Amino acid sequence: MEQEFSSTLLENAVSALSRLPGVGRKTALRFALHLLRRDPSDTYTIADAIADMRRGIKYCTVCHNISETDVCPICSSEKRQHSLVCVVESVRDVMIIENTRQYSGLYHVLGGLVSPIDGVGPDMLQIDSLVRRVKAGGVDEVILATGATVEADTTNFYIYRLMRREAPGVKVTQIARGVSVGNELEYTDEATLARSLAGRIPFEL
Amino acid sequence: MEQEFSSTLLENAVSALSRLPGVGRKTALRFALHLLRRDPSDTYTIADAIADMRRGIKYCTVCHNISETDVCPICSSEKRQHSLVCVVESVRDVMIIENTRQYSGLYHVLGGLVSPIDGVGPDMLQIDSLVRRVKAGGVDEVILATGATVEADTTNFYIYRLMRREAPGVKVTQIARGVSVGNELEYTDEATLARSLAGRIPFEL
Repeated sequence: MEQEFSSTLLENAVSALSRLPGVGRKTALRFALHLLRRDPSDTYTIADAIADMRRGIKYCTVCHNISETDVCPICSSEKRQHSLVCVVESVRDVMIIENTRQYSGLYHVLGGLVSPIDGVGPDMLQIDSLVRRVKAGGVDEVILATGATVEADTTNFYIYRLMRREAPGVKVTQIARGVSVGNELEYTDEATLARSLAGRIPFEL
Repeated sequence: MEQEFSSTLLENAVSALSRLPGVGRKTALRFALHLLRRDPSDTYTIADAIADMRRGIKYCTVCHNISETDVCPICSSEKRQHSLVCVVESVRDVMIIENTRQYSGLYHVLGGLVSPIDGVGPDMLQIDSLVRRVKAGGVDEVILATGATVEADTTNFYIYRLMRREAPGVKVTQIARGVSVGNELEYTDEATLARSLAGRIPFEL
């Protein structure tokens, strides 16, 4: 149901808002009409906030996480364990891990996963910079903290081989895959259960 | 899952985007990270488009539809039938009716429906201005084109009584409620079917 609006200003706003992920013209129109009903300052706040964000946020030159400074607060913190580097797919994953408040090392954001189907090769990701960073010294362990998908497995395997060749002294680990906390065994899929068995660890009290 | 972001700029953008209808912090974060991945011009286009829209669009002083001028293009068009006024709930409804390309009269946007539960009284809607507009002359028929809800019925009844008292010479009609085009009788609910029977019209070829 393509719509034509009598107002060019409305048309432009709807077209622009449709660029947001998962937002079609119908939702964009709902956003626009909502903004028109509310106080103008609401709209200006949103417009300024996203423009300021885009202007002010850059990427950390060390870990490639978003940052307002050249080196992000995590990479420049003396309270973090600099010998530990956790490799993640995206900026979003850094936030998720930070929210657990269980990790005190640094990060390395790949900016995606190796995916031949989508035409994403290792050279399009921050893998070279990871190798350079590790070879520069001071890193004891690289934790591969990607999801449990085929692309994640491919990426992990690629990084592991490269690490063995380029920095053989550095430990490479990956986060455990197994039964989700709170889940019953009968509702766990077979692949996860198999992984969980293969990855068993000594029982500790 | 409340999140704290290391960047104030990101935090501000996420808070601002959460003001859009149906957008929570999780979706707002997805929007923000998407904008950060794309070309900066994308973000500036969206920011400018919504700010320009909010600055430039006002409401038609006659029908209260959105407009870039004091009187909207529909109200000022000589091609439209000025004796016919179609009363709708919202700006969105004007667009929907315009898209049918079947209506050549004018509109009157109420800006809502009478709803005692939500604390919306007739005085909060553009009903007084409708009465003034009709009493000013030149209007032969007022078409009540609201939805088929309790609030719509209440609003229609209120407007109808007011019209009978204030402008008894003006015809008041309402859009037909009945079987949807393309629908089979067995899938039509009883209330609609009852309305459809009561509102039967002479068969014409």
